[in-house]
Amino acid sequence: MPGETELKPGERIDLLVSKQLRIIQNPAAFCFSIDAVLLAHFAWVKPGDLVCDLGTGTGVIPLLLSAISRADHIYGLEIQPEMADMARRSVLLNGLDDKITIETGDLREAVLRYGSSRFDLVATNPPYHRLRRGELNQTDAQTLARHEVLCTLEDVVTAGSQIVKSRGRFALVHRPERLTDILLAMRQRQLEPKRLQLVHPRAGEPASILLVEAVKDGRPGLSVLPPLCVYEADGTYTAALRDIYFGKHEGGCEDD
Amino acid sequence: MPGETELKPGERIDLLVSKQLRIIQNPAAFCFSIDAVLLAHFAWVKPGDLVCDLGTGTGVIPLLLSAISRADHIYGLEIQPEMADMARRSVLLNGLDDKITIETGDLREAVLRYGSSRFDLVATNPPYHRLRRGELNQTDAQTLARHEVLCTLEDVVTAGSQIVKSRGRFALVHRPERLTDILLAMRQRQLEPKRLQLVHPRAGEPASILLVEAVKDGRPGLSVLPPLCVYEADGTYTAALRDIYFGKHEGGCEDD
Repeated sequence: MPGETELKPGERIDLLVSKQLRIIQNPAAFCFSIDAVLLAHFAWVKPGDLVCDLGTGTGVIPLLLSAISRADHIYGLEIQPEMADMARRSVLLNGLDDKITIETGDLREAVLRYGSSRFDLVATNPPYHRLRRGELNQTDAQTLARHEVLCTLEDVVTAGSQIVKSRGRFALVHRPERLTDILLAMRQRQLEPKRLQLVHPRAGEPASILLVEAVKDGRPGLSVLPPLCVYEADGTYTAALRDIYFGKHEGGCEDD
Repeated sequence: MPGETELKPGERIDLLVSKQLRIIQNPAAFCFSIDAVLLAHFAWVKPGDLVCDLGTGTGVIPLLLSAISRADHIYGLEIQPEMADMARRSVLLNGLDDKITIETGDLREAVLRYGSSRFDLVATNPPYHRLRRGELNQTDAQTLARHEVLCTLEDVVTAGSQIVKSRGRFALVHRPERLTDILLAMRQRQLEPKRLQLVHPRAGEPASILLVEAVKDGRPGLSVLPPLCVYEADGTYTAALRDIYFGKHEGGCEDD
């Protein structure tokens, strides 16, 4: 059953999916972004699926998938202990410990933990930015979550390819500027890109977010879905984004 | 000076770019499509550029580029003699033989004809469809223009990579389902994808056309431009497409 929790210094509780879910966040460490929310809605989850979220952070993707899908069980793997701890407490706070398991560990060793060909769906919102010289010694939570310090794009795709079943799905959110790297890394690891969606801040602006789903051992042939726009010209969320953030049956954005 | 021409059986003359240009077409053989028009507008042509269009068909891309850019000279290479002949006569019809040279030849031998690292821009609207068994013996003009009988995607990218200068551009129009193949073929040949645009028939529908520009020896990093929609919900062209088809300063579509 949903319980209460004691928050640690700097933490707060945010609401997800029309107030159905509560998530513990710490703005000084790392808060989930729109990217994770978009990925949770983009990924195709079948009833009964076994799901893994690689680099789960504060657990936003498992929490959302537990609410909007009929997945059987969702694992979230996170290397930073304080983030995994927040995620674990959010799972308890929502009474979801029978649906979600958060584990502390390195995604590069995911196959040792879970075994190969285990999951129907692997989702991931990995660090986006290549590491530049001078950033190597930055080890704060934000840097680790956003830069390729602890894992590269190729590490994430390798781990996903190892632990997903043949014909299973690998869903990734990333930056459009890395599209070539992403499609290449996938195909080199028998993950065939099948669905791509670009997200533009506003109509008429270049894409800022990329969502892609690959199928392990799938046949070549990609579908590019209609694009998503985040904001209207007046700065309010588009109807499509409000559907994603607040559920299809609520029009308001009063929680924002 | 623009001249008159005798049409061969089945041929007709169509108008391009607000009636500025005339192009000889033969519907029984092959007519240019929206794809070539989109590519001519997508490709970035600098004043004084030397340009090559690989597989030029009836010459629509050289004709359009001569009107909308300040390229120094544009070569069009076409393997089918009757298509190259139509293209050549269209060039004469528009009095553009000092700007455009149409040659009959195999694009797989383009580097032998032009030499390596020759062009500032290579454009191409190649056959899209992989050849299936049973189609191998179809050698009519339409099949050759649309299916990978005489050249594969990889052949076209190889030829482009050979004849384009370092830091020169390679612009391609193709089908979104081949996106992974395209980006892979480009990167393997030192053509780094830099600009991508998806074209959707209508808002809310998957993309049906892909435009991509790569830079020879360019640095990784792709920009995904705002998407284009071809039709409004009521079946008329969108304003963006009317701009492309008829020029920015004419609103009508009376030529369509």
